[in-house]
Amino acid sequence: VVSTGVDRSQLLEVLDQVRAGALSPVEAATQIGELPYAEVAHAVGSTLIDHHRELRTGVPELVYGASKTPEQIVGALRELARVAGRAIATRVDPIKAAAVQALLPEATVHELARIVTFDAGPRTARPVAAPIAIVCAGTSDLPVAEEAALVAEFLGAPVVRISDVRAATVVIAVAGMEAALPSVLGGLIDRPLIAIPTSVGYGVSVDGLVALGAMLTSCAPGIMVVNIDNGVGAAIAAVRIARLPFLTSENR
Amino acid sequence: VVSTGVDRSQLLEVLDQVRAGALSPVEAATQIGELPYAEVAHAVGSTLIDHHRELRTGVPELVYGASKTPEQIVGALRELARVAGRAIATRVDPIKAAAVQALLPEATVHELARIVTFDAGPRTARPVAAPIAIVCAGTSDLPVAEEAALVAEFLGAPVVRISDVRAATVVIAVAGMEAALPSVLGGLIDRPLIAIPTSVGYGVSVDGLVALGAMLTSCAPGIMVVNIDNGVGAAIAAVRIARLPFLTSENR
Amino acid sequence: VVSTGVDRSQLLEVLDQVRAGALSPVEAATQIGELPYAEVAHAVGSTLIDHHRELRTGVPELVYGASKTPEQIVGALRELARVAGRAIATRVDPIKAAAVQALLPEATVHELARIVTFDAGPRTARPVAAPIAIVCAGTSDLPVAEEAALVAEFLGAPVVRISDVRAATVVIAVAGMEAALPSVLGGLIDRPLIAIPTSVGYGVSVDGLVALGAMLTSCAPGIMVVNIDNGVGAAIAAVRIARLPFLTSENR
Amino acid sequence: VVSTGVDRSQLLEVLDQVRAGALSPVEAATQIGELPYAEVAHAVGSTLIDHHRELRTGVPELVYGASKTPEQIVGALRELARVAGRAIATRVDPIKAAAVQALLPEATVHELARIVTFDAGPRTARPVAAPIAIVCAGTSDLPVAEEAALVAEFLGAPVVRISDVRAATVVIAVAGMEAALPSVLGGLIDRPLIAIPTSVGYGVSVDGLVALGAMLTSCAPGIMVVNIDNGVGAAIAAVRIARLPFLTSENR
Amino acid sequence: VVSTGVDRSQLLEVLDQVRAGALSPVEAATQIGELPYAEVAHAVGSTLIDHHRELRTGVPELVYGASKTPEQIVGALRELARVAGRAIATRVDPIKAAAVQALLPEATVHELARIVTFDAGPRTARPVAAPIAIVCAGTSDLPVAEEAALVAEFLGAPVVRISDVRAATVVIAVAGMEAALPSVLGGLIDRPLIAIPTSVGYGVSVDGLVALGAMLTSCAPGIMVVNIDNGVGAAIAAVRIARLPFLTSENR
Amino acid sequence: VVSTGVDRSQLLEVLDQVRAGALSPVEAATQIGELPYAEVAHAVGSTLIDHHRELRTGVPELVYGASKTPEQIVGALRELARVAGRAIATRVDPIKAAAVQALLPEATVHELARIVTFDAGPRTARPVAAPIAIVCAGTSDLPVAEEAALVAEFLGAPVVRISDVRAATVVIAVAGMEAALPSVLGGLIDRPLIAIPTSVGYGVSVDGLVALGAMLTSCAPGIMVVNIDNGVGAAIAAVRIARLPFLTSENR
Amino acid sequence: VVSTGVDRSQLLEVLDQVRAGALSPVEAATQIGELPYAEVAHAVGSTLIDHHRELRTGVPELVYGASKTPEQIVGALRELARVAGRAIATRVDPIKAAAVQALLPEATVHELARIVTFDAGPRTARPVAAPIAIVCAGTSDLPVAEEAALVAEFLGAPVVRISDVRAATVVIAVAGMEAALPSVLGGLIDRPLIAIPTSVGYGVSVDGLVALGAMLTSCAPGIMVVNIDNGVGAAIAAVRIARLPFLTSENR
Amino acid sequence: VVSTGVDRSQLLEVLDQVRAGALSPVEAATQIGELPYAEVAHAVGSTLIDHHRELRTGVPELVYGASKTPEQIVGALRELARVAGRAIATRVDPIKAAAVQALLPEATVHELARIVTFDAGPRTARPVAAPIAIVCAGTSDLPVAEEAALVAEFLGAPVVRISDVRAATVVIAVAGMEAALPSVLGGLIDRPLIAIPTSVGYGVSVDGLVALGAMLTSCAPGIMVVNIDNGVGAAIAAVRIARLPFLTSENR
Repeated sequence: VVSTGVDRSQLLEVLDQVRAGALSPVEAATQIGELPYAEVAHAVGSTLIDHHRELRTGVPELVYGASKTPEQIVGALRELARVAGRAIATRVDPIKAAAVQALLPEATVHELARIVTFDAGPRTARPVAAPIAIVCAGTSDLPVAEEAALVAEFLGAPVVRISDVRAATVVIAVAGMEAALPSVLGGLIDRPLIAIPTSVGYGVSVDGLVALGAMLTSCAPGIMVVNIDNGVGAAIAAVRIARLPFLTSENR
Repeated sequence: VVSTGVDRSQLLEVLDQVRAGALSPVEAATQIGELPYAEVAHAVGSTLIDHHRELRTGVPELVYGASKTPEQIVGALRELARVAGRAIATRVDPIKAAAVQALLPEATVHELARIVTFDAGPRTARPVAAPIAIVCAGTSDLPVAEEAALVAEFLGAPVVRISDVRAATVVIAVAGMEAALPSVLGGLIDRPLIAIPTSVGYGVSVDGLVALGAMLTSCAPGIMVVNIDNGVGAAIAAVRIARLPFLTSENR
Repeated sequence: VVSTGVDRSQLLEVLDQVRAGALSPVEAATQIGELPYAEVAHAVGSTLIDHHRELRTGVPELVYGASKTPEQIVGALRELARVAGRAIATRVDPIKAAAVQALLPEATVHELARIVTFDAGPRTARPVAAPIAIVCAGTSDLPVAEEAALVAEFLGAPVVRISDVRAATVVIAVAGMEAALPSVLGGLIDRPLIAIPTSVGYGVSVDGLVALGAMLTSCAPGIMVVNIDNGVGAAIAAVRIARLPFLTSENR
Repeated sequence: VVSTGVDRSQLLEVLDQVRAGALSPVEAATQIGELPYAEVAHAVGSTLIDHHRELRTGVPELVYGASKTPEQIVGALRELARVAGRAIATRVDPIKAAAVQALLPEATVHELARIVTFDAGPRTARPVAAPIAIVCAGTSDLPVAEEAALVAEFLGAPVVRISDVRAATVVIAVAGMEAALPSVLGGLIDRPLIAIPTSVGYGVSVDGLVALGAMLTSCAPGIMVVNIDNGVGAAIAAVRIARLPFLTSENR
Repeated sequence: VVSTGVDRSQLLEVLDQVRAGALSPVEAATQIGELPYAEVAHAVGSTLIDHHRELRTGVPELVYGASKTPEQIVGALRELARVAGRAIATRVDPIKAAAVQALLPEATVHELARIVTFDAGPRTARPVAAPIAIVCAGTSDLPVAEEAALVAEFLGAPVVRISDVRAATVVIAVAGMEAALPSVLGGLIDRPLIAIPTSVGYGVSVDGLVALGAMLTSCAPGIMVVNIDNGVGAAIAAVRIARLPFLTSENR
Repeated sequence: VVSTGVDRSQLLEVLDQVRAGALSPVEAATQIGELPYAEVAHAVGSTLIDHHRELRTGVPELVYGASKTPEQIVGALRELARVAGRAIATRVDPIKAAAVQALLPEATVHELARIVTFDAGPRTARPVAAPIAIVCAGTSDLPVAEEAALVAEFLGAPVVRISDVRAATVVIAVAGMEAALPSVLGGLIDRPLIAIPTSVGYGVSVDGLVALGAMLTSCAPGIMVVNIDNGVGAAIAAVRIARLPFLTSENR
Repeated sequence: VVSTGVDRSQLLEVLDQVRAGALSPVEAATQIGELPYAEVAHAVGSTLIDHHRELRTGVPELVYGASKTPEQIVGALRELARVAGRAIATRVDPIKAAAVQALLPEATVHELARIVTFDAGPRTARPVAAPIAIVCAGTSDLPVAEEAALVAEFLGAPVVRISDVRAATVVIAVAGMEAALPSVLGGLIDRPLIAIPTSVGYGVSVDGLVALGAMLTSCAPGIMVVNIDNGVGAAIAAVRIARLPFLTSENR
Repeated sequence: VVSTGVDRSQLLEVLDQVRAGALSPVEAATQIGELPYAEVAHAVGSTLIDHHRELRTGVPELVYGASKTPEQIVGALRELARVAGRAIATRVDPIKAAAVQALLPEATVHELARIVTFDAGPRTARPVAAPIAIVCAGTSDLPVAEEAALVAEFLGAPVVRISDVRAATVVIAVAGMEAALPSVLGGLIDRPLIAIPTSVGYGVSVDGLVALGAMLTSCAPGIMVVNIDNGVGAAIAAVRIARLPFLTSENR
């Protein structure tokens, strides 16, 4: 992933050297100018673990399993959990998940959600968040809904899968085909509503493009949409919102 | 707009009759079952003003000007402002806006944003909301950004158009063409980020589909997207989020 | 329009000659084989008025005004009404409609529906049909809904524009954008439901493709769909259905 | 599936409590308002069997087999047949069908149509319907035509697969590639005509989009179209039409 | 396949009855009107072999193997060859071709072209045709080129695969990717030029849509295009052209 | 237009110099290698008139009027007619055509076909060709059909617009919307059949893509297709075919 | 445009303050972190002129005229030329160009290329570059070719519009429709080749998507493509390449 | 591949015969005219090895492995290496690569890049080139980046995979999904920048079309784009640029 932000600790180190006179402003300017590019270019050689991401964006790195080998997934899970006490990998199909568990028996496989989680040692404190409700339109949409639920829980948010939409702070609606669910909900609630189109269906609905279009053009205004089948993105967005009351009350 | 929710005051009226014995449960069930359909069907005959929408969804009806005559826009603005003290119409092009203002001189025309606002008499109290930042990638994206800004302000949220993204509770990023702005911001902040793709550009970018796709597939997770050029939808979504700290602290 | 059916009167003429011995079976077979092609080829030279279509398909020729001059429309209306007592032209924009009315003052212009009707002399009896309900999702969908309503009425069916969907024999639902209306109705009624997607909207909804897709992929099974903005086609389909109870009870 | 309708029996229960004074109108209004959401949210946890659907829409729940395991299919078939005496599952590929039959030996597998039917005990009476004709353009379109035929028969309609189109009350035309069949039929008959595009073909016809487009834009007006390969939807629509002569004659 | 032509032998039978007075013209007209539909409907029940097609269109039925079982292919080849002395099946993949040959050892498998031919007994005379040249842009386009070559030869046309394009009466150009070959040839020769786009490539060229578009928009006017990978269609079109010099000189 | 062929007269001039010893083979090779590029590059500076094209491809340059000014059209018509005695410009809309005729009063404007022809002085002999039939599906397709007819006549082919398709050597079928005409004709005739999709229609048929797809995927094999609305390309292709009987009989 | 690079002079100023002890490293880190965002946010309020861009990327800001008023264009041209001595605006249609020239009589209008240039006072030295050849496929592609030529010349590169492609250091090929030109050139030269697809054409070529696809999938490897009609982008890319020989020889 | 250039050695042979009087200019013109077509037609019969391509375009033939058998790949590698001392095959999946290595044990398999290289005997001298930097956005883009790197190295260019982008002469940026990397780099460097979109991702990003569009519409001007996943094309383009400083300094 492209990181254009300057790493603050590295920056402070350079600035300390400037204050100490060990580095001239011109040399420092050059070093600062190069900080972002180093990270961009690294990716060619190996998988980078970005431990600073959580500090910067509030969300740690999640391991995207679809384009990684079981060995790469295990390596990433171990390294992330070494520092943060826990780690999660998404889009791990059943066969790959079995191979991951063989290599890392402490890992937990969530088959429906295609997720592997790994808890190691003492956890770092996680930010508190308000409850998130996840509703889904049909049985076929369950894997994506579960992906969103597990990622949101991993990020520290209580998730309500059933019952009363109106008690939640944020609502995630998962639907494929003609995706009428978010439109119906959007006309009934006053809370933030995130819609996930799913690739469920056949004929013109294949790949979820119709569901995506229906959500984007919904008459019920204020619906926010993420990529097709993107339970992870919806969970992260929901958690960022669900943390707001706590963040702001702390600031007072 | 399809309204499937039952109008609460009509419902209470029916229930009062049941309690009073003036209506049998079977007759009441039939009447309740028919409540939603009446409203769906009305639209064929005339423009309905739904004063209850704000109570239900937290957002009053906004007048969508693109498919209305100046007379229809003025009529809707007057009726909405009669009850709520204020009203807003979007997608009003300059020629139509001039005709609206000729009919309703107290209206204010915001040309860049293609918006007409109308303030009449004492306002009803609006919910308090945290600040929203709106950043946009280029000059060509300004009309959509201004649409979002004015609608958010109309809904009671303070809007910061410039300066520090990190002081905001919610960020709206507006960008056309390859839409790299949300990806860059998404890697730098930990607040909810709503992206509006714009239809600016030429060649393969025409109509904003590339910008939409780039935002949906962004590597920076947690970005929420609305329809192309949809400043209104982004503003409503942002305001729903920005009201959360106040809603929840009131509940304590 | 391709007409592959053999004109019955021409066919009978040939057969009479065969019975009279004036034509050999082989010569007759050749003549019969050529009957359909003559009509196909005619279209190059002039606008054909097909008076036999109503007998064959139950629906007379409707004048499609979009690609015709005011003179051509008037000519077609006069010729059709000469035989059937009435005629209708669709997709006639306001400017063209004014020119048509200047040439044919007895014509009636329905501006919202972009339709011109012309009643001349004694009408031929029209088939009886059950009532058709037409509901539409928003103000912007009204022109298409009115087109469907006027064509259905022209074809002899009583049309109910408002109120109770459940009293109708057939329901036409008109909706643009995310087109949730047919899905909602489809889960509530047990009558045939025809959905018309409209080209209303902006961003990804432009041209009605999302509405079309949402209707085709609706979870509420049994929804039948016609082309975008095709009020005429939906009306004809609905009338064919609405005539069934009468046609079949006659057959018993 | 989104069900926005209020369950009538639950509603009556609430209303009985209101009449009995056990529940205040305000409390009742809240309970009624929440009835629909419960069902929407349930889907996250398990597969819901909606026995009320047939009463509401005239069509019982059909099991969509494509996204279910053999165990889930068998469970749904048993539960539906327990109440209705019969059940049907669609989109069950040969391998899955064999597994279903191993678990439920009384089931019947229709391989060409990818359908499994299950008859158990005494049937509930089914509505009477007029005959439906199903014609198809080529050998490759047969699976979809058979899916439509079996579902229509399951719903109680006599189906005519061959011979005279004009004796039928409703016609279903199944065609892939350039889909000229519905256009030709549409110009020859006066009965309702439902067209199913199929995904048969190669090159630009792949996925059936050309066939879908050709049917929607047919010059023969009044053709109604369902999703690509959607034999189920066409059958349900046809049965709803085919029941009309009986339903309405009962009403007289 | 939709056959709208009236079967001549059936027609003559009816006409003989009319001449003989055994059938009234009115009854005959009804019978003639129904002749075409019978064939349309047949397709639901079984694979029809249309021996009359060659007389009507100059091209016998070719067996399209992609959607048939080996047994169906062998049955069709035997039946066609029984009457015409020879038969051909296209789109037969290697595994299916082996099964066909096991059932019909006299058949010849052309693996590259995915074709099976079958010669049985004395051939009927085939029409004479001028030579056809087939050129192709790359190794990957060879299977489609060979399909075209074998079908053209099967239909009686001499095919030149290499050397001088200018000696041919008709040229078939096969190309994938950007498909510059037909444009280059089209600017150099004065003979009819048929272009076959192939689905070769990756990235934006996948599925041959770019090649198809490039051929349709070629600056070299007069290029005629067939469906992607459609060697059969190009061969039939080329043979119809290549027969002209002989057909018309006979007519003089 | 890219011309990659070497101009023969220029080539002969170079070769004469080589034979005369005035040019070394190495110098000549360099000059020959550069011949094609000169023409490619010219286009930047001015409109090139390529008088050699007719000799090479059998078809003279036609002036494509859509992207030219009236002055450019007149200039090109005059220059082409100066050498060939006649010239033709296509895609000239009515306003531009009037401006052309004001500048060149001897020109003839064909409004329906958007064509301007210009005859000047003695004509060069044109090749003989067999008759071409042009059939079209509806009134809206006439402009494209007329464009094809006038260009074919300009190129020396007799054109039959009506009556018997079977008397023609080549058939051009023009159709928009679902384009069933070519499929119907393709099953009835044994002559080359060229199909022109037109951009007539609305909804999903807009731009003619459905008509194009239907023609390319037609079950009636051997149909050749040109670009949407491309009457010119179809005419040139048809004329090349229609000349064959004469060209080849000369060769015998 | 998003500018993520830190302005070097501002950065040095901050660093000087750190060295001088006037700013703590922590304060400095915060200031540095905010430098890029300030510029991103500015765009909402006004048009930013980025004078530093040329230093950073070698290319000054070009004024994109399509979405600006004449006043905005003149303001930007004046400001850019004040510092750099010259400025250029692209995509300025004739009407807007006339208005620009009325306000800024010293400006030069290039109508074909839709460009306005403005030279004011002493120029800053421009980097030296090798010659660039621009070839284009047809008259209709000239405006885009001229846009590329003028922008390249504005950036200091000699441009050769005609004659010998092989003498150039870089070649820009401009082509619409099937875009065979780059493929042909790509097989003949060994220099960098940049292809610009143009939106010229009709039917399937409309909008240039076919030309873009053909260039991207060209068999001639090494072709680099820019957006449709993007003469500016091709010119900038070509100039960056054409400067290489000079840049690197300076480095030796 | 279509080769329209005349083979220089064959041409010189013909010209020598002309000078020697052994061939008349007319005969020679005919022979020269036919030289290109012979090669076009050859492709039908066998895989052509074009040893002259490197002389003409600076790049030898690379073996495209995707549509070839292991035997064909080995044959091509051997023949190319026989003359040039080295050869390379791309798009060779692991299974095919193993088969190639079994047949040609001296070959080297590069699994990540799906490339097989083969070095045989003394190499011919390769042109000198400046360094090329290759950066990629994520782990999933590595295979395409490695393909580009290995092909560039094969063509003689030093490749820098990590560290400082600004030291390179040309930069290749590889990115999928929203492809923000090239935009970010494009605003920071002044060297030629070639972007490769990759087909990595899911949802709307599938197939790389969003990445392609984002790169083509990037606000950072001067980015040149190649086909999706086309590491080979980017490498060849980059090497052509990287050779320029050496080529031109030789010319001085």
